[in-house]
Amino acid sequence: MPQTNAANLSEPSEQVQKNGWHSSEQQNGHQPHRKVFDNDDEFQANGNQDNEMDERNSVRYPDGTVRLRNPNIELMDQDILYHLALGSGSHDLVEMFGDVKFVCMGGTPKRMEQFAYTIMAEIGHKLPCGTTLQDISQFSYRYSMYKVGPVLCISHGMGIPSVGILLHEVIKLMYHAKVRDPVFFRIGTCGGIGYEGGTVIISEEAVDGALRNVLELTVLGKTIQRLAKLDKRLVRELKALSDPEDPYDTVTGKTMCTYDFYEGQGRLDGAFCDFTENDKMEYLEGIHKAGVVNIEMESLAFAALTHHAGIKAAVVCVTLLDRLKGDQVLAPKEVLDEWQQRPTKLVCRYIKKYLQMKGRLSLDGHGSISVKSPRRFKLVQQESETYD
Amino acid sequence: MPQTNAANLSEPSEQVQKNGWHSSEQQNGHQPHRKVFDNDDEFQANGNQDNEMDERNSVRYPDGTVRLRNPNIELMDQDILYHLALGSGSHDLVEMFGDVKFVCMGGTPKRMEQFAYTIMAEIGHKLPCGTTLQDISQFSYRYSMYKVGPVLCISHGMGIPSVGILLHEVIKLMYHAKVRDPVFFRIGTCGGIGYEGGTVIISEEAVDGALRNVLELTVLGKTIQRLAKLDKRLVRELKALSDPEDPYDTVTGKTMCTYDFYEGQGRLDGAFCDFTENDKMEYLEGIHKAGVVNIEMESLAFAALTHHAGIKAAVVCVTLLDRLKGDQVLAPKEVLDEWQQRPTKLVCRYIKKYLQMKGRLSLDGHGSISVKSPRRFKLVQQESETYD
Repeated sequence: MPQTNAANLSEPSEQVQKNGWHSSEQQNGHQPHRKVFDNDDEFQANGNQDNEMDERNSVRYPDGTVRLRNPNIELMDQDILYHLALGSGSHDLVEMFGDVKFVCMGGTPKRMEQFAYTIMAEIGHKLPCGTTLQDISQFSYRYSMYKVGPVLCISHGMGIPSVGILLHEVIKLMYHAKVRDPVFFRIGTCGGIGYEGGTVIISEEAVDGALRNVLELTVLGKTIQRLAKLDKRLVRELKALSDPEDPYDTVTGKTMCTYDFYEGQGRLDGAFCDFTENDKMEYLEGIHKAGVVNIEMESLAFAALTHHAGIKAAVVCVTLLDRLKGDQVLAPKEVLDEWQQRPTKLVCRYIKKYLQMKGRLSLDGHGSISVKSPRRFKLVQQESETYD
Repeated sequence: MPQTNAANLSEPSEQVQKNGWHSSEQQNGHQPHRKVFDNDDEFQANGNQDNEMDERNSVRYPDGTVRLRNPNIELMDQDILYHLALGSGSHDLVEMFGDVKFVCMGGTPKRMEQFAYTIMAEIGHKLPCGTTLQDISQFSYRYSMYKVGPVLCISHGMGIPSVGILLHEVIKLMYHAKVRDPVFFRIGTCGGIGYEGGTVIISEEAVDGALRNVLELTVLGKTIQRLAKLDKRLVRELKALSDPEDPYDTVTGKTMCTYDFYEGQGRLDGAFCDFTENDKMEYLEGIHKAGVVNIEMESLAFAALTHHAGIKAAVVCVTLLDRLKGDQVLAPKEVLDEWQQRPTKLVCRYIKKYLQMKGRLSLDGHGSISVKSPRRFKLVQQESETYD
């Protein structure tokens, strides 16, 4: 297996869940909030403990690169990532993305562009001379992409299907680019359950509208379930990076993920509503007691697909309001803008700490557009335009 | 109820399904393809037959305007359509959208912009002098909107949650704007099941990955089902507008709608795949026998939510390939571009026929941005920016 530059970096944390990948066990207990970060040394653990290796080997190659749970891909002449307008036969994906370490996803192109500029401002000095913020959005008709050295920023649209398509293709991109031990973050906004607007919430796990810790999929007509787990150590590490000086709380808990914004989240102001304010409050207070601290629309797929791929992932959202107190967002624009910077700040601190540990990275040509086959490049761009 | 200009137009077709709105009956039989259009006079039926009125009254006011199935909205001081950045207290929605008759939705902003230009070219001469193509995309951070006289064109992103949020807000927009008997179209691309690339498919009904003709929702922790029905007469009318000279087939049948593009549609080339080519073919041939002619990712919500709102709706998609023959789209760009014009053409013919029947419309000031309250206008724009 060819080595990329990133391959020389050891890991900040290689915690892989002890549970089997196909285990159907669910954790019904509420994870305690504000858990103390165990030990700063954990952050630098190389993760190669024997008891973790068995699990990792099922979804990673020995060097940490992603092993796809699909035997067909390596047999294909070329693999087209339709919605990203990239292909393994048309683009030199190792050259373009081999140095990626962090993949950050958020709802809108605008937010991810802002995220990329913040990353550039915060960590640019840690990157090799000549590293620029690359807008690679022109590749895709669905998802906007930006790259700053080892950080890939992508918008994911709204809802599980939209983020699901992206995750399938980004996971394959990690495989083709031979990225080692990537870490995925979703940043976004959410409704708080018992937490006022502006609170940063790190998800301990994702649950569906019926409090099940699984993503349900219909595959060839049969319903299957995938555990929607997130990396516990990464939750602790992120929590530990919250600053006592921060003028807001950073908490952890269960995140409910729904398929609908209105009825699915108990809102009274959709086109349809068959329940009362009392029914709604009873439901929201019930899920609050079950440990749910926020509601959004992507975390279930994000947790389930990254967990199934053996990729360490975290979801960091800021609340726009406390749903136990109302449905309307009433904070003024300047306040909302500042709130939305908060998940970005926390993820930036994590990335900065990682880079501080690693020292200056070398550039080594990664990241620029690298076409292997002009004919196939044109074909991939054409095919990507046509998918709905 | 104040009358809008559009209120003076009688209807091309008022067919409302005879089944109760809450009926859980399912049609398991395969609808015959290429059903002959009953009678051109049907197109001009005024729809006020007694046997249809009982059903209509449950979801429409006597003048045909949309009656929301949510008692809370009319009690609200103002209703903010968060993802459209419009509000009933901030914008004069009757002034801006009261003349809308057709709402056309498609996946991408680019496609809907093209659609709007095609509409303008095709029907512009039928519209009052001074009617322009309005780009009202600046309103929304999620959905791009264009308006050409009575035709509102909106992009909907990918998947059921994304189109579902849009439908809730557009249905409320129809209510606030007092639009009479609106007709909704989804145009898009799909995979054909037994039909080669370039075939136009009008959906008779939508089914999920397990062939159920319902949209399942989790509301306050309980699973509910909504019938995913489409208007049968509209299907026949659209089918009748296919031209024998068209160098492609226009067919009708069941449309399967999935939550996932890869495993959910039986693709072998996702990040994960636990089934074989044989398993896949057995499944696709099975759903083909059950009457499924194409697969996409939005029709289930589109059919179920419009049906529940009593809004006449149709789904018209073009196939990019026959999934019984493969998974890869291989047609060159020029061919694909032409294919994607085909659903647009069919919907244009329908709108043209409607306008021919109605004669020249009057403009009467509809459509320009109309702000009722500058303070609330600013608030709505701010709130819209923050939703994920």
